[in-house]
Amino acid sequence: MNTFGELFRLTTFGESHGPALGAILDGCPAGVPLTREQIQVALDRRRPGQSTITTARSEPDQVELLSGVFEDKTLGTPIAAIVRNTNQRSGDYEKLKAEDRPGHADAVWRERFKHRDHRGGGRTSGRETLCRVIGGAIAEAYLARDVPSIRTVAYVSQVGNLVAAVPAPGLTREQVDAHATRCPDVAIRDEMSRRILTAKEAGDSLGGAIDVRVEGLPVGLGEPIFGKLKARIAQALGSIGAVTGVVWGPPDLLERIGQPGIQFHAVKDAYGGIQGGLANGEPMQIRTFFKPPATLQEHAKGGRHDPCIMPRAVPVLEAMVSLVIADLVLHFNARPHAP
Amino acid sequence: MNTFGELFRLTTFGESHGPALGAILDGCPAGVPLTREQIQVALDRRRPGQSTITTARSEPDQVELLSGVFEDKTLGTPIAAIVRNTNQRSGDYEKLKAEDRPGHADAVWRERFKHRDHRGGGRTSGRETLCRVIGGAIAEAYLARDVPSIRTVAYVSQVGNLVAAVPAPGLTREQVDAHATRCPDVAIRDEMSRRILTAKEAGDSLGGAIDVRVEGLPVGLGEPIFGKLKARIAQALGSIGAVTGVVWGPPDLLERIGQPGIQFHAVKDAYGGIQGGLANGEPMQIRTFFKPPATLQEHAKGGRHDPCIMPRAVPVLEAMVSLVIADLVLHFNARPHAP
Amino acid sequence: MNTFGELFRLTTFGESHGPALGAILDGCPAGVPLTREQIQVALDRRRPGQSTITTARSEPDQVELLSGVFEDKTLGTPIAAIVRNTNQRSGDYEKLKAEDRPGHADAVWRERFKHRDHRGGGRTSGRETLCRVIGGAIAEAYLARDVPSIRTVAYVSQVGNLVAAVPAPGLTREQVDAHATRCPDVAIRDEMSRRILTAKEAGDSLGGAIDVRVEGLPVGLGEPIFGKLKARIAQALGSIGAVTGVVWGPPDLLERIGQPGIQFHAVKDAYGGIQGGLANGEPMQIRTFFKPPATLQEHAKGGRHDPCIMPRAVPVLEAMVSLVIADLVLHFNARPHAP
Amino acid sequence: MNTFGELFRLTTFGESHGPALGAILDGCPAGVPLTREQIQVALDRRRPGQSTITTARSEPDQVELLSGVFEDKTLGTPIAAIVRNTNQRSGDYEKLKAEDRPGHADAVWRERFKHRDHRGGGRTSGRETLCRVIGGAIAEAYLARDVPSIRTVAYVSQVGNLVAAVPAPGLTREQVDAHATRCPDVAIRDEMSRRILTAKEAGDSLGGAIDVRVEGLPVGLGEPIFGKLKARIAQALGSIGAVTGVVWGPPDLLERIGQPGIQFHAVKDAYGGIQGGLANGEPMQIRTFFKPPATLQEHAKGGRHDPCIMPRAVPVLEAMVSLVIADLVLHFNARPHAP
Repeated sequence: MNTFGELFRLTTFGESHGPALGAILDGCPAGVPLTREQIQVALDRRRPGQSTITTARSEPDQVELLSGVFEDKTLGTPIAAIVRNTNQRSGDYEKLKAEDRPGHADAVWRERFKHRDHRGGGRTSGRETLCRVIGGAIAEAYLARDVPSIRTVAYVSQVGNLVAAVPAPGLTREQVDAHATRCPDVAIRDEMSRRILTAKEAGDSLGGAIDVRVEGLPVGLGEPIFGKLKARIAQALGSIGAVTGVVWGPPDLLERIGQPGIQFHAVKDAYGGIQGGLANGEPMQIRTFFKPPATLQEHAKGGRHDPCIMPRAVPVLEAMVSLVIADLVLHFNARPHAP
Repeated sequence: MNTFGELFRLTTFGESHGPALGAILDGCPAGVPLTREQIQVALDRRRPGQSTITTARSEPDQVELLSGVFEDKTLGTPIAAIVRNTNQRSGDYEKLKAEDRPGHADAVWRERFKHRDHRGGGRTSGRETLCRVIGGAIAEAYLARDVPSIRTVAYVSQVGNLVAAVPAPGLTREQVDAHATRCPDVAIRDEMSRRILTAKEAGDSLGGAIDVRVEGLPVGLGEPIFGKLKARIAQALGSIGAVTGVVWGPPDLLERIGQPGIQFHAVKDAYGGIQGGLANGEPMQIRTFFKPPATLQEHAKGGRHDPCIMPRAVPVLEAMVSLVIADLVLHFNARPHAP
Repeated sequence: MNTFGELFRLTTFGESHGPALGAILDGCPAGVPLTREQIQVALDRRRPGQSTITTARSEPDQVELLSGVFEDKTLGTPIAAIVRNTNQRSGDYEKLKAEDRPGHADAVWRERFKHRDHRGGGRTSGRETLCRVIGGAIAEAYLARDVPSIRTVAYVSQVGNLVAAVPAPGLTREQVDAHATRCPDVAIRDEMSRRILTAKEAGDSLGGAIDVRVEGLPVGLGEPIFGKLKARIAQALGSIGAVTGVVWGPPDLLERIGQPGIQFHAVKDAYGGIQGGLANGEPMQIRTFFKPPATLQEHAKGGRHDPCIMPRAVPVLEAMVSLVIADLVLHFNARPHAP
Repeated sequence: MNTFGELFRLTTFGESHGPALGAILDGCPAGVPLTREQIQVALDRRRPGQSTITTARSEPDQVELLSGVFEDKTLGTPIAAIVRNTNQRSGDYEKLKAEDRPGHADAVWRERFKHRDHRGGGRTSGRETLCRVIGGAIAEAYLARDVPSIRTVAYVSQVGNLVAAVPAPGLTREQVDAHATRCPDVAIRDEMSRRILTAKEAGDSLGGAIDVRVEGLPVGLGEPIFGKLKARIAQALGSIGAVTGVVWGPPDLLERIGQPGIQFHAVKDAYGGIQGGLANGEPMQIRTFFKPPATLQEHAKGGRHDPCIMPRAVPVLEAMVSLVIADLVLHFNARPHAP
């Protein structure tokens, strides 16, 4: 199942050590302004090597558009984009040929598919998420044209046991990107960086959380029952390797969950922007929890692994949320209101 | 989107105050032993009026099988089952005709579909979940034949701010059902009952959490990327109205998430039975968080509403998880291992 | 695979000798005027026992609406409708328990599903098509509101080796229904009736063809590549048991197919209303070929079988074509034109 | 809708005058022997310029594998393959910028998508079918491993009004490929060639028919109702641009359709290998009708268009049929028989 969405549909392909990774976006309406550069900008936000706290691997990740765009507009046909793997260093991985990496899914995948790709993570590699960023960039281009009110911003809200304060409304991606941690809390983010660097040097790793905020969703967005906005978001975020929990609601929802209903429902933002499975016009809020990366100790030395994946996962979460929204906008369009 | 699953596929229909609710299960293999009574037993576990702590509404919820089963075996054709609504009391709801119920999705649904069903919750009613219990009972009948190792047990793990101890391995549904709260922690469950009754009398309500444990999953169960076991589980549980968070992992995962990776990965159960998106042979563990019900104060008086939905939601979660597993087992069958 | 369509989606269920058959239509927009009687009228056109040339079985086929419609308007929720089997006479079929009926799919289904339903055709029975007529009636109700230009009319164009003249434009269902054969050619239809009656008395049967005409389709209706209007129509009609061929184009297309291109393309109607897979604004024309029914000789005596299925298949084909169109209209809506 | 199949799923992309075309095959089991060369061989059978009777365009159509295959075996991950467009000559098409090509879908596509790609046919180009041949080659590789009894052979059975004799059983692809027409009837094929050349010189074109035979299908292959083997085949073949009719049955079926049932059903091969929608163990036979190509007169001069598309369509039909079969084999696997 390498396809996500029904009407705005992303298919991803490619192994971390094969010739290329890529994405097909089928269902984007015709006439949407879209350039290769827009997608490249999105990929650059996810790219390794952006700061000292991420992996030192240098992957230029240059995207090439193969179809679906002509004269900087979408054609309404499938948009295909690929990224060549240039820094494969499969020699590094040759030694892993006979052994499963501890904490990784290697043993499980070998049991399932028998024929494991010893060149590296294959499809379980976090590198697969670059395909989602491509899809997300197209989703955002579409939404920018048809529902320009929508603004999706994600940020790191927890690193290890350091929890950030809730940022004020109106947070922008620029503010998030201003610090290598992608945490907007100025009181804590330098300490976050320090801890990540310390972990990196020790061959250790750190998990935490990312919050996503979406403003400007059309009221009623979502489909009933199994297509509920929160069900779709859950599937989208649950499909990301390191994600281990999803909460729909404000950042402190799990603390409020123990309150009696009269108290809980007195505060309007408790629904995280979703009621009856549909957007209710308030900002949508989601908190996503991440495990610490599993590559540790001697395996983590050499700097080719991220000690903390969240700063680079921020654009991936934005991409997945934008893909869900674009799909639901097309569903919404499909059934216009009664006159 | 009233259909869930790809190969083992549940479609639900019916409004809470229409003539009937029902389910179609398409894709169940032929020859599976299945009786009406098996489905009825499952529905009885979800039925209102089982104890003083649930709604006093008396809904007999008798299921009728319309197709797909002959001489107590499935035919391989779609299994249709319906439950007539006998206790509609739509007069009670007539007064709601002009007003939206506070905390409910009424306003959002009216915005989306224009034409709201003023007879009650319609499709947003928790009553829709009985259709899922029907589907779950069929999924369990199928799994009992083809993967009899699987044992799925859910239990209430938190009510308000009372959190239960983690039960010992080997917990059974009989043990869970032995108390009206469906919490297996003998040290706390009577207090849980008392708090629910107090809330009921006060027109208040309580949220909390349910944990699901699945033992005996085949190693490798799940599909890559967007079909990951955890993504599917997330969509399944996120589609339940009151659910507001899903965590894949042991009950205390969110406390461990702040640990450094070396510590986190040292304990084998941290993965909740899922690695690389696939079952790893350990018990699968999921914690699901519930909002307190939104029907409060004068609206909640008269006893026709649940002050705490979790005891009755336990079989619904088991049903959804069983549906996911049955679907993934068929996917697993579809692609036999290389020789 | 008992579901057809993506956005306007029909699921059918029920065995010919089980308690009931039925249909779920998921995806019909809210607010569409729809009554039980509209569906009943459609079913009555398919019902057996309408004339001496069809089966003498008397199946009242009364439809009951279980969900999705309130105060004669659709709610936007799944529409469930069932028809009880009242004339099962399973005793008649008891004798078939040990034997496969010649020319029927019994042996193939037993090989596939092991567990054959000896009560009759089960899901392979033509009786399943009543579920499609239910779906078609809902599709037509929707189209009548949102694309009222569309007019779909099918008629019998061949019985045995008698081929009808092509009717003039503007043919109506009333004109078609005016004769028991549902053939509008007054010069030939009485002879058709006579031949059907002769076949009936002899335990013989007759095949032939049905033509479908659709006027008023929006230009551009259809989806590219695998969602082409003609691909969808082919799947829809190819899913009907007795259908053995589908031709998109005017009734005499197969005679024109041997013409050189310059001659073929000189006549505008050669495309049957479809170009590049999309509706081109001309009337859509489809010819569908039917095998003679397989129930023959002593098995056909007693009058419980149709010697010629086409007169009763006319509303089934209209239903399937309307379902395809409704689904494609929703797809069309989903992607509004660039501004 | 650029995706075909459910479990063995082909997605195609690429415009005829964009940078590349390609295919993603998702769902092929792991461990299937597959090389780039196997796919290239299949593409070479479809390639233009194979003989004097096809277009003189020289498109080398070299395929590159981007993912899903490692050490000449499938990984169970999506297989991505692309073909660069090297012979675009978009200058040729620049003059078409302002005008719609007669007989083509240009006007309809512009109405639908507003933004037409004036570089050529775009997605309506027959060039899109090379992506299907890639998918078909993978399907055949899979079937060769898991159901090696299956043999699929297509051949040209009609060119203009010349109809070939039915070939003897055991026909091979080598025998079909032995003549530029891909017609195995030695008595008529040279005359077919001559007529094609005459049409080519005159700026004219010829349609006709292709027959497909499949031997060795597992009994029971196919899914009930909307997943019937014949419904799937119809959708698959109906999705090919020039196809205008599909008949399931022996080549002379339409002549037999007028026979009384007793006569029709006396001959065992009348079902074309399909009963109740499932394979019955006999060879499956399908006849597909083709319109003459629409590029005519001055537009056809210069030799860059095929006067008769059928010889090159033979491998495309084999590919589509193989894709249907592979998908249905996986469905068959998914639901093992009752014990």
